[in-house]
Amino acid sequence: MIKVSVMYPNEPGARFDHDYYRDSHLPLVKRLMGDGCLYYTIDKGLAGGAPGSAPTYVAMCHFFCESPASFQAAFGPHASEILADIANYTDLQPVMQLSEVVVEHS
Amino acid sequence: MIKVSVMYPNEPGARFDHDYYRDSHLPLVKRLMGDGCLYYTIDKGLAGGAPGSAPTYVAMCHFFCESPASFQAAFGPHASEILADIANYTDLQPVMQLSEVVVEHS
Repeated sequence: MIKVSVMYPNEPGARFDHDYYRDSHLPLVKRLMGDGCLYYTIDKGLAGGAPGSAPTYVAMCHFFCESPASFQAAFGPHASEILADIANYTDLQPVMQLSEVVVEHS
Repeated sequence: MIKVSVMYPNEPGARFDHDYYRDSHLPLVKRLMGDGCLYYTIDKGLAGGAPGSAPTYVAMCHFFCESPASFQAAFGPHASEILADIANYTDLQPVMQLSEVVVEHS
């Protein structure tokens, strides 16, 4: 199983609508990707590692898929619709990463 | 519920022993933290968002806990033992982040 992480850097003055992200954007992505997305998770950044420090990312989501190919097959055909919705909740450019899920749930 | 993410930047020439991380380090942390760590996950970085690009992080783990206080109460007393084990699998300095778990499993 693989995980596609979408991580939004916590930049001062940037806009991020956590409610829209949770209630509209991610459900849209899941609906478009269908079974190609097994499930997803959402994080809201609270703090960094040092006491009182800011989080590196204001928000993250992680899409769990069978393989890189199954992610591409599910996401690719809907990429333009999904990307067009981003402006509705943020003006940030996310960092993306594809990872192997070594331990899903200890 | 909160998630404590420990993210190791993918720096050229750095050392990271994924087997030790999975088989020894994380089980040690979980044993020491006890029920203060509900569960954890481990990722191994494969690629970045652009085709052929390197991942931002070579590895990540995420500890799921009831609250920031329960994480601190479970981790704090064992911090020195846990941190002393890091040299056994890497020479990297991790980025840490504390997040609210908005959606645990869609």
